[in-house]
Amino acid sequence: MTSLRDVLSRRRDDVPFDVVRAAYCELHVSNLEASRHFYVDLLGLVESARTADTLYLRGWEEQTHHALVLRERPTVGAARLAFRVRTPGDLDAVEQEFVRRECEVERVSGALAGMGDAVRVWDPFGFPLEFFHEIARFPTQLQRFDLHRGAPIMRFDHLNIHAPFVEETTELWLDLGFHCTEYISTDGDGERLTGCWLSRKSLVHDVAMTAGTGPRLHHTGLATADPLSVLRACDQLAAAGHADVIERGPGRHGVSNAFFVYLRDPDGHRIELYACDYYTGDPDHPPLRWSVSDPSCRSFWGAKAPDSWYDESSVVLDRNGNPTPIGEAGVDERTARSVLMA
Amino acid sequence: MTSLRDVLSRRRDDVPFDVVRAAYCELHVSNLEASRHFYVDLLGLVESARTADTLYLRGWEEQTHHALVLRERPTVGAARLAFRVRTPGDLDAVEQEFVRRECEVERVSGALAGMGDAVRVWDPFGFPLEFFHEIARFPTQLQRFDLHRGAPIMRFDHLNIHAPFVEETTELWLDLGFHCTEYISTDGDGERLTGCWLSRKSLVHDVAMTAGTGPRLHHTGLATADPLSVLRACDQLAAAGHADVIERGPGRHGVSNAFFVYLRDPDGHRIELYACDYYTGDPDHPPLRWSVSDPSCRSFWGAKAPDSWYDESSVVLDRNGNPTPIGEAGVDERTARSVLMA
Amino acid sequence: MTSLRDVLSRRRDDVPFDVVRAAYCELHVSNLEASRHFYVDLLGLVESARTADTLYLRGWEEQTHHALVLRERPTVGAARLAFRVRTPGDLDAVEQEFVRRECEVERVSGALAGMGDAVRVWDPFGFPLEFFHEIARFPTQLQRFDLHRGAPIMRFDHLNIHAPFVEETTELWLDLGFHCTEYISTDGDGERLTGCWLSRKSLVHDVAMTAGTGPRLHHTGLATADPLSVLRACDQLAAAGHADVIERGPGRHGVSNAFFVYLRDPDGHRIELYACDYYTGDPDHPPLRWSVSDPSCRSFWGAKAPDSWYDESSVVLDRNGNPTPIGEAGVDERTARSVLMA
Amino acid sequence: MTSLRDVLSRRRDDVPFDVVRAAYCELHVSNLEASRHFYVDLLGLVESARTADTLYLRGWEEQTHHALVLRERPTVGAARLAFRVRTPGDLDAVEQEFVRRECEVERVSGALAGMGDAVRVWDPFGFPLEFFHEIARFPTQLQRFDLHRGAPIMRFDHLNIHAPFVEETTELWLDLGFHCTEYISTDGDGERLTGCWLSRKSLVHDVAMTAGTGPRLHHTGLATADPLSVLRACDQLAAAGHADVIERGPGRHGVSNAFFVYLRDPDGHRIELYACDYYTGDPDHPPLRWSVSDPSCRSFWGAKAPDSWYDESSVVLDRNGNPTPIGEAGVDERTARSVLMA
Repeated sequence: MTSLRDVLSRRRDDVPFDVVRAAYCELHVSNLEASRHFYVDLLGLVESARTADTLYLRGWEEQTHHALVLRERPTVGAARLAFRVRTPGDLDAVEQEFVRRECEVERVSGALAGMGDAVRVWDPFGFPLEFFHEIARFPTQLQRFDLHRGAPIMRFDHLNIHAPFVEETTELWLDLGFHCTEYISTDGDGERLTGCWLSRKSLVHDVAMTAGTGPRLHHTGLATADPLSVLRACDQLAAAGHADVIERGPGRHGVSNAFFVYLRDPDGHRIELYACDYYTGDPDHPPLRWSVSDPSCRSFWGAKAPDSWYDESSVVLDRNGNPTPIGEAGVDERTARSVLMA
Repeated sequence: MTSLRDVLSRRRDDVPFDVVRAAYCELHVSNLEASRHFYVDLLGLVESARTADTLYLRGWEEQTHHALVLRERPTVGAARLAFRVRTPGDLDAVEQEFVRRECEVERVSGALAGMGDAVRVWDPFGFPLEFFHEIARFPTQLQRFDLHRGAPIMRFDHLNIHAPFVEETTELWLDLGFHCTEYISTDGDGERLTGCWLSRKSLVHDVAMTAGTGPRLHHTGLATADPLSVLRACDQLAAAGHADVIERGPGRHGVSNAFFVYLRDPDGHRIELYACDYYTGDPDHPPLRWSVSDPSCRSFWGAKAPDSWYDESSVVLDRNGNPTPIGEAGVDERTARSVLMA
Repeated sequence: MTSLRDVLSRRRDDVPFDVVRAAYCELHVSNLEASRHFYVDLLGLVESARTADTLYLRGWEEQTHHALVLRERPTVGAARLAFRVRTPGDLDAVEQEFVRRECEVERVSGALAGMGDAVRVWDPFGFPLEFFHEIARFPTQLQRFDLHRGAPIMRFDHLNIHAPFVEETTELWLDLGFHCTEYISTDGDGERLTGCWLSRKSLVHDVAMTAGTGPRLHHTGLATADPLSVLRACDQLAAAGHADVIERGPGRHGVSNAFFVYLRDPDGHRIELYACDYYTGDPDHPPLRWSVSDPSCRSFWGAKAPDSWYDESSVVLDRNGNPTPIGEAGVDERTARSVLMA
Repeated sequence: MTSLRDVLSRRRDDVPFDVVRAAYCELHVSNLEASRHFYVDLLGLVESARTADTLYLRGWEEQTHHALVLRERPTVGAARLAFRVRTPGDLDAVEQEFVRRECEVERVSGALAGMGDAVRVWDPFGFPLEFFHEIARFPTQLQRFDLHRGAPIMRFDHLNIHAPFVEETTELWLDLGFHCTEYISTDGDGERLTGCWLSRKSLVHDVAMTAGTGPRLHHTGLATADPLSVLRACDQLAAAGHADVIERGPGRHGVSNAFFVYLRDPDGHRIELYACDYYTGDPDHPPLRWSVSDPSCRSFWGAKAPDSWYDESSVVLDRNGNPTPIGEAGVDERTARSVLMA
């Protein structure tokens, strides 16, 4: 019988395209100036471009045009989870893959500043994905230490989603060539997956998912250089009178080893600032399992996450910018845990 | 009319003795080996001496014989809050002061390893104090970086008590020559003190008190070199399977600027590991006021302290090693806050 | 005309094998116990296996069997610069490539503990390379913070060589599918390459080379989690009476942004402990050029490297364990610089 | 026979005044705007006040009006080494002390912004000292993390002087109530003092001296919160194109445990940024001796200081703002060392 570990350990060698990494997230916000204040003034992200209703931001080491796109729209939500592919040919191959899967697929060109062709897809679970190759570049500011502000935030790292069908959703990402680095599952017979971390870029994750009401975006992960940067972000936010945006942490995750803090932007979109990733690029790097009944997987030091961290997430938007209806999860991590620990 | 600030700003120039600093704490524990495991194996404190029922510990930069004395006894509690005075003459003067105040006073000699004469006092509020001058010295191990274990913990820093009569208790410590560096008080008419930080050694505190059920010892504060040491302690404790001893934090206090974590030892005695103190030695260094209705005073980043942190403390022991009866506080910080914020 | 930048920017899409990363280095040492003391007792590397004359070491996050192999032999030198390939098939393809290049090639099986098949190659410039796929695995100790010793050293990162024909050597590595992330070159007409950093694993380098007397191994780069780990290593070495092993730094390189310190082991083999790498995995990540006349490329803060750092390196060993004869560099970085700055 | 250690261990109990700490330094500079750029734009000190020719600066935790006074004058040099006393009465007592010693003494009032009465003294060795009690206060900005710039620099810490008669000069400071925390001396018969660290504020030093050509000011020590702040200062200076101002370090001193970097301002005045001090306030805290032949006293990690660090210092200015003639030291630390190590 095939175990969950076997399934998660398998590597697809025959994927006809090469996804390089998760690259950016487009969020619809209710007030662009309020969002700008949060992301630029408070967190110190770098502005790459701005139009009347859209702001393009990147981290201090990033050379690609944007890591975060903020767009003022009547309906707030996550509009786009975007991934870069290695070549223009990979883009065609991705398009074919999703056409084959009978998903809604749209090819756009220059839809965002600094970008060429992109393939937009609404995946079978309702997540609004985008794949692209071409993007404008800036010189690195990694060593402009004299200009760095905020934590500082160095680069985009990952997307974390709430998925009602976490096992099926994981299967999709494995099919896209991602490999599982860590996962959380129930104990005993009928092992169920409750969380999964999947990577392309040789670190812990480009995309991760937690069983939960969805499709929703749980958070966008932004990388800082070290744990002290995370502490500095908290100090600066609090000093500026915005301690209320700190939802959880700072703390250490068991899963991923992340030293994290979770922030909520003016529309409630969740941002993780994190440090302490590790290398996962070896071909036989095995998935690391955590039991859902082991509280250290979420909080290595034992601090309980607030319920909002489990319950609240950004809705994702459909082709018309409307919220995608959400469904309940088959497995809830907290329920699974409490049942098992009872 | 004299304001609370005026009272707390006054410096006594005529105190006939010179208390150098808070120096050590003696805790009675139920199982010395369990305590040794916690303080030595897990936290990395240095053993100075050990007898059948007593363990003497110090930090890595400390040259005086002990910062923490652990004694196995049937009744668990805080047996001694000890302060060093500048000269043997100061010891006599302190003795006279407490005799004058009609407190229970006892002069002992060589009662603890490494010590000479000491004056033991049960203050008017029931706290078991000790003053001493003579203590054995070890060479510093500040630069034995090759031996350092744990956070590492560098030195004893302060004692924090739960005092039912916080205003009267503060007055005592001002009379002993301590100056107030920070305080928390209620807003509006009839301002009441709910917390006070008092110093002799030019940092934020040697003794601090919070209005609460007492007399009890809230925690013993141990200094680390920097915030990363506090994070390292959490990582090491969790990795060793002891995440459950982490009660609160890590986080930043508004009061004192401390970067802190609170731990509970096997008997529930609370230890604070902390960093980020500041200089307070100038003669006109003014008390910094925090409103009890400002949550940032306790938690600069906004994380709520668990109720245990407010409610639980170590009982203090009387001359016979029995718990001193405790009384309710006139003002409770959480009540004061919620009333005011209602 | 093709510029140096053009040459260094080209990506080979047709390489018939996939090198994952630089994986380990085998050093021949004169006294295994002295080396063990240095690498295990002082630096805190983890022992994976030991035989009478050989020690296998790895970092705290590493799951592969070894990052460093120390072998006691009469002739001291660098015996093997080893790289992991993605599949067993890649190993065959690499073998064919070097046979095609008419290099000395040897296929071995189980020659080292924990390893299966390996292809050993003496490249056209005399460097003793090895490629392998199969290697035994250990569970990660990334989160065994309670066991970590030393800096701690997390993982093997890169190999840095002294190459007399730096341009030709760079071409070889480009042909093997490595991409150039940074380089140093002379100014003006007849631009010459004096240093080059080449990567497979999406960080700055797996292999780097400096124009110089060679073939020689300049250093083995080991990654720590953050800059404070590098400082801690210096403090621990000095406290243990071994400040003399610190050759250069700590400091910041302009090239690679590394926060570094260089150490010399008991036989003079050079180790770099470093932190502060960055992501380079995007397909159009451009090579970053530094002028050889800009001192900030080597020392961002301006501290001059000692001459030993330029002049001394480990000889590399031939098939019989004898030193490979060394030749003078066509371009010397210091000469190039002083000529240009004169 | 009285040993050097005995002399340095003695504490004066009868000093009729109480010096709280070294408080500020006044430097004469050739171009106020260039100095402002260095100290404010690059290092991030806070401006307290500015006049046409004078700039008053302080650190982020400081509440007293200035830690550094920069004055544009034709003759560059150190004009004032200033110390705060506890009470106005202490100021009178200090004045009498120096009158008794037949030094040049001048009482001024409001000579600098934010100050009241001050006693200016040219000590027997030519150093321009000032003592004062009254000084204006600002609210602390310790927790304005959102405003902090630069390292950041938290507060003034100490003055380090080049003294031709280091033993006699040390005696003066012992007479003023300072206690010796660490010292460097020659080995064998006829032990000579070559460096001495003296404190009032319970940390390692308020004033330190090195045997050398003088009277001169070697450097002004400014405290940062932790070692990473020192690294950040180097990164920021280098990124802004000013790596050339970094003279020595970063590194660890054996003496004082300081994690340091030495900078030179536009006129060559030397600034030390430092972290990792320790508590020295106990009445029997013993002087820690270092042998002049032990290189770890100056450089715990072994890096050699550049000759400029030994040879160059700021001249001190007399009452008329002219350089005080300088004399050779009786003992030179480097000579003492090389003779002894020969």
